[in-house]
Amino acid sequence: MRPNPLRERWGDGDVALGGWLTIPGSVGAEAMASIGLDYVCIDMQHGLVDYADSIGMLQAISTGSSTAVVRVPENQFGHIGRALDAGAMAVIVPMVNTVDQCEAAVASARYAPIGSRSYGPTRVQPLEGADYWERADQDVAVIPMIETVTAMENLDGILAVPGVDAIYVGPADLSISMGLPPGDQNDPEFLTALDTILEACGRHGVVPGMHSNAAVARDRIERGFRMLTITTDLVALRSKIAEDLSNVRN
Amino acid sequence: MRPNPLRERWGDGDVALGGWLTIPGSVGAEAMASIGLDYVCIDMQHGLVDYADSIGMLQAISTGSSTAVVRVPENQFGHIGRALDAGAMAVIVPMVNTVDQCEAAVASARYAPIGSRSYGPTRVQPLEGADYWERADQDVAVIPMIETVTAMENLDGILAVPGVDAIYVGPADLSISMGLPPGDQNDPEFLTALDTILEACGRHGVVPGMHSNAAVARDRIERGFRMLTITTDLVALRSKIAEDLSNVRN
Amino acid sequence: MRPNPLRERWGDGDVALGGWLTIPGSVGAEAMASIGLDYVCIDMQHGLVDYADSIGMLQAISTGSSTAVVRVPENQFGHIGRALDAGAMAVIVPMVNTVDQCEAAVASARYAPIGSRSYGPTRVQPLEGADYWERADQDVAVIPMIETVTAMENLDGILAVPGVDAIYVGPADLSISMGLPPGDQNDPEFLTALDTILEACGRHGVVPGMHSNAAVARDRIERGFRMLTITTDLVALRSKIAEDLSNVRN
Amino acid sequence: MRPNPLRERWGDGDVALGGWLTIPGSVGAEAMASIGLDYVCIDMQHGLVDYADSIGMLQAISTGSSTAVVRVPENQFGHIGRALDAGAMAVIVPMVNTVDQCEAAVASARYAPIGSRSYGPTRVQPLEGADYWERADQDVAVIPMIETVTAMENLDGILAVPGVDAIYVGPADLSISMGLPPGDQNDPEFLTALDTILEACGRHGVVPGMHSNAAVARDRIERGFRMLTITTDLVALRSKIAEDLSNVRN
Amino acid sequence: MRPNPLRERWGDGDVALGGWLTIPGSVGAEAMASIGLDYVCIDMQHGLVDYADSIGMLQAISTGSSTAVVRVPENQFGHIGRALDAGAMAVIVPMVNTVDQCEAAVASARYAPIGSRSYGPTRVQPLEGADYWERADQDVAVIPMIETVTAMENLDGILAVPGVDAIYVGPADLSISMGLPPGDQNDPEFLTALDTILEACGRHGVVPGMHSNAAVARDRIERGFRMLTITTDLVALRSKIAEDLSNVRN
Amino acid sequence: MRPNPLRERWGDGDVALGGWLTIPGSVGAEAMASIGLDYVCIDMQHGLVDYADSIGMLQAISTGSSTAVVRVPENQFGHIGRALDAGAMAVIVPMVNTVDQCEAAVASARYAPIGSRSYGPTRVQPLEGADYWERADQDVAVIPMIETVTAMENLDGILAVPGVDAIYVGPADLSISMGLPPGDQNDPEFLTALDTILEACGRHGVVPGMHSNAAVARDRIERGFRMLTITTDLVALRSKIAEDLSNVRN
Repeated sequence: MRPNPLRERWGDGDVALGGWLTIPGSVGAEAMASIGLDYVCIDMQHGLVDYADSIGMLQAISTGSSTAVVRVPENQFGHIGRALDAGAMAVIVPMVNTVDQCEAAVASARYAPIGSRSYGPTRVQPLEGADYWERADQDVAVIPMIETVTAMENLDGILAVPGVDAIYVGPADLSISMGLPPGDQNDPEFLTALDTILEACGRHGVVPGMHSNAAVARDRIERGFRMLTITTDLVALRSKIAEDLSNVRN
Repeated sequence: MRPNPLRERWGDGDVALGGWLTIPGSVGAEAMASIGLDYVCIDMQHGLVDYADSIGMLQAISTGSSTAVVRVPENQFGHIGRALDAGAMAVIVPMVNTVDQCEAAVASARYAPIGSRSYGPTRVQPLEGADYWERADQDVAVIPMIETVTAMENLDGILAVPGVDAIYVGPADLSISMGLPPGDQNDPEFLTALDTILEACGRHGVVPGMHSNAAVARDRIERGFRMLTITTDLVALRSKIAEDLSNVRN
Repeated sequence: MRPNPLRERWGDGDVALGGWLTIPGSVGAEAMASIGLDYVCIDMQHGLVDYADSIGMLQAISTGSSTAVVRVPENQFGHIGRALDAGAMAVIVPMVNTVDQCEAAVASARYAPIGSRSYGPTRVQPLEGADYWERADQDVAVIPMIETVTAMENLDGILAVPGVDAIYVGPADLSISMGLPPGDQNDPEFLTALDTILEACGRHGVVPGMHSNAAVARDRIERGFRMLTITTDLVALRSKIAEDLSNVRN
Repeated sequence: MRPNPLRERWGDGDVALGGWLTIPGSVGAEAMASIGLDYVCIDMQHGLVDYADSIGMLQAISTGSSTAVVRVPENQFGHIGRALDAGAMAVIVPMVNTVDQCEAAVASARYAPIGSRSYGPTRVQPLEGADYWERADQDVAVIPMIETVTAMENLDGILAVPGVDAIYVGPADLSISMGLPPGDQNDPEFLTALDTILEACGRHGVVPGMHSNAAVARDRIERGFRMLTITTDLVALRSKIAEDLSNVRN
Repeated sequence: MRPNPLRERWGDGDVALGGWLTIPGSVGAEAMASIGLDYVCIDMQHGLVDYADSIGMLQAISTGSSTAVVRVPENQFGHIGRALDAGAMAVIVPMVNTVDQCEAAVASARYAPIGSRSYGPTRVQPLEGADYWERADQDVAVIPMIETVTAMENLDGILAVPGVDAIYVGPADLSISMGLPPGDQNDPEFLTALDTILEACGRHGVVPGMHSNAAVARDRIERGFRMLTITTDLVALRSKIAEDLSNVRN
Repeated sequence: MRPNPLRERWGDGDVALGGWLTIPGSVGAEAMASIGLDYVCIDMQHGLVDYADSIGMLQAISTGSSTAVVRVPENQFGHIGRALDAGAMAVIVPMVNTVDQCEAAVASARYAPIGSRSYGPTRVQPLEGADYWERADQDVAVIPMIETVTAMENLDGILAVPGVDAIYVGPADLSISMGLPPGDQNDPEFLTALDTILEACGRHGVVPGMHSNAAVARDRIERGFRMLTITTDLVALRSKIAEDLSNVRN
């Protein structure tokens, strides 16, 4: 079984930088996986990508060396299992607000007796090797999202759930939940919440991750985040073309 | 942000007439959206359309002026959020039988603090404009289906849930639930149920909508329904070709 | 091998009535193939259907009893061979204006020594049976389109090419080629051209076919055409919904 | 309505043998449905097949005579209803571990008053005939999976749920749940569990089914199983090519 | 019929700036069409886009205001006709090296008696309006590519073909043809060739266009080109993410 | 640039064994590319695979180590260029019967001044590396098919065309062309033709290749063929399942 580069990087204390796929299609996915990002995440929640699209995208990611991650549409047994069977080595699970929800997310990704994942690694076993069964529970990362004030209130409980290797802050939803607009990522109250999360992660030995962008990613790293999504396909495409157009027009 | 023509029409006291897409594919969707219907609904419950198909269909609807509506496969947080992120300006939610189910449906479509919709309007914000965030909670319509006797028993509670702008009667399921065959839309008991719904909608200031067809739509309008689906792609296709064939053969 | 119902009908002196698929997708194809049409034709020239779409559509047609026909995008060896390998039992070939073009079309659909079709009946042999190889040259229909004044000038030569079982008049292109607008199918000059074609077909023992619609199909049959396309998916869909909408609105 | 060959076979006391589709795409599905298997099952849980893919695959299966079966991704109202509306005549439901879960599965597949299936047989009614509504509750098979020790503990309750015609053992998950590796299908403890299931099925008049493979299928039949999946597309493809390659290389 | 904005801009003496789609998929196409580019071109020659993909992409472009352009895979009757029927208002035709090839390209895009385009504007007529037939020959732009030394030798003949409104320089192929590496766009000999083209276009009243990029586009405009593609989806995506990654890493 | 393993193997005097993809879809392609075959060929002539499908299949092949080969639908400039741009490192070109046809095939795959391939290695350059441009003319293999008696008559001329590294015998078409049934691959006259081809290849230093199957591949190798396709996806799938079914039934 190939090592999960994302987990190796975390084990080494390094920061993992990733990209986000919201456009369905394997050509964009292959492009993103060829640039040197540590992970590439297929967003099936807010991205326009369905499971049918994700298969080819996971294959395309396999042509490069970035770890394949999937954000599932919802914290649900079927979604998590199917993403892993198809080749994801980590799942980001949205709206994990309670300990119960966190335990359910982890259980969906671990085989019995740890959890209740159903066995059928149709694509991932040929891809990862004959020992997938033996190593999957250790190698697959389950990454709950912390993105509401309820999750903040339950933070210690969530971080203490066995099998939670990392968490992923959803800044827009956390902001809205705190009464802030989704785009405001530098409100002092918001930054205090980030500090609270970082501190708790440190206490629990959980890797702190966060959705980010090129403008604030360095700040997030300096604060202590170690898993940062720095861009998305759609943002990169739109912003670069708009920039080019503006440059040529003027 | 573009106004939601469906809600404008309701605000003006008008009747909105719509079409129903059950065939996956953007070519049929564009055709249906070019005819002058007030709304076009992608049916992801009984239609043969999946989320992967719906993206192109929503784009195709955007080439015309009909409001894009999605009937989600099931009353579920993920389904409702993804339909809205992809561009639907209204969601029809099947099998809303209790007040709890109705509150869950509405919460899935409204941002905090009203509801718990997750933020990520990937397609809809570029489409609708920069103020989408500010206006979405007012502009997006959530339309629970009334289609069982249980829903009839809970009708006042369901209609009183804040954020329910309209309801949508599912006549086949309501009939079955009442012990009638699905196709019988003129049974006196069934028509009495419609009157009950209309009366309650009137009391609660909720727009009464209904799945219908060309044969009975005028009757439904005269009874007081103000959101009527008058045909589906598959029915139109099959009936018209059968009619043509019969005319030419004989 | 299953008999080709289209050819059987011709052999019996009957008129074959067909439908035309211009919308990509197998659901519409299955619907059209379930209505009782003698043939269903996938239009890869002016329809929005590509070879990738046509496979599922040919499978969908196989669930019914209509003969599967393909209009290829262009008179080309590869297009004709691939349509036949995928299951079409007849090909309509556009813009056959000269004897050479007609001979090329026929050769593309017949194995050596008659023609030069390449062997590889990947889908059609399992579908049609082990004797496909032996019967294909007799059973597959090649149907050149007569749709320009050049073709009219070469009509006798074209109809005399061995292996031409039927021809198919393209009325819009023939009209344009004659200096008439594409929609005018009742101009006396145009009707005279039809008579010329019918007379020549009679002399050569070739079945006269024509693209038509519900309004004029009966007239065409009375004139003597024996293969008539009476509608298309897109026309049926649009016209029926527009009719329904108009009926309900008024 | 066409008889459901799977149920006919069971009624006759025969063993039904099936194949398993895990590769998305209608061409492989048509191939598998042309070989003479009693049923062909589209695996939407561990297969790489989504609902969008399944439509064309169900159409492809309809070109042959095998019964179309779907394993849904999860025991959920929406998944079960959509599979049936699209043409499946039987659904295999994973992870049915309790009586409640079994009742929910059955209810999702039966119309009121028996269950709560929503009415909209978009593809299946044109396919199966006008009496689909009247016969669906009798003809559609609901097949819960028995694949955990919890399910074994609740076996009698599960088998006693009205409407359970057959069950389907998931050997890999059952093994894992029992503390055995997923691939060990001949452990004495495992075989004892099979005997327990067979005995209980006999007592309740429920058809015992099981996921299997070519190596052990005969043994399973001799033990008393009457619904056996003997291979999957991906296993057949990989093993046959590897075998051919090995034969030619050496 | 909506005016063709590309031709309007040319008529006003303005420069048209465009983007290039090489990734199949409608989501990226919609994004590119929402940025304010004068035209968006689907590249079916070197892009990874097939006709089946192009339909949804053309629909996506229709949601914005950029003119839809298609570069066909090859100078062929079928390719040109199908692109126009599907909604392209301009076709870029590769490898037009001789007057004959240029005349063939133009004829494929013009109805008789000017050319030989076959009539069947399946998508474009509903989109552009009922007068499409009357205006298409004037409104559709045919844009031959000048990209070999042979084409340079035949330049005056090519530019004199009636119906050639604009030409499009392919700098990589022209460089190779001149014995230069494909990426060298500032070789003096190459720049002299551009001047030759510009001068000839001026003499013939033909709009000079060119494939370009953000780095050299301003220079090309200053030289006199009036149709400039300034970027592609894949280049924008890859370069922006690489830039972001580099910025965050360092 | 990664070495082309197929050419390396030929350079070492080894035999290359390959598999044939006729089913559209990337999952089967990935499976075939994971078994250890020297090459995997996507058949766009008789396979049911279109260019739109081939992109994902080429990506899937890139996850393994087999050389990606495409059989183009027809000997045409556009088909050959697009297959190479998308990542094929060898093209098999059907129906190369004359020296002219052979020269055209080679020219389509070689940049000027050797040939006339158009520059735009959209997927293949990122995949193969920055030196693709410099090495493509040497590294890409062009493999004409010898499959008619006309080709046999022109054999020496065809084999002498510079840039022909290998040829590929199409046994079914060659048999038909010789007046034999397509399935007869052991007719003495046919075997003599093979010897003629082998002898001519030896004289010209061209690698002799042939479409084959598991039953006769060893014989072909012993005769001297050094590029052998030993199976196809559809044949493997159908034969293995039929074999399994027969074994279990009896």
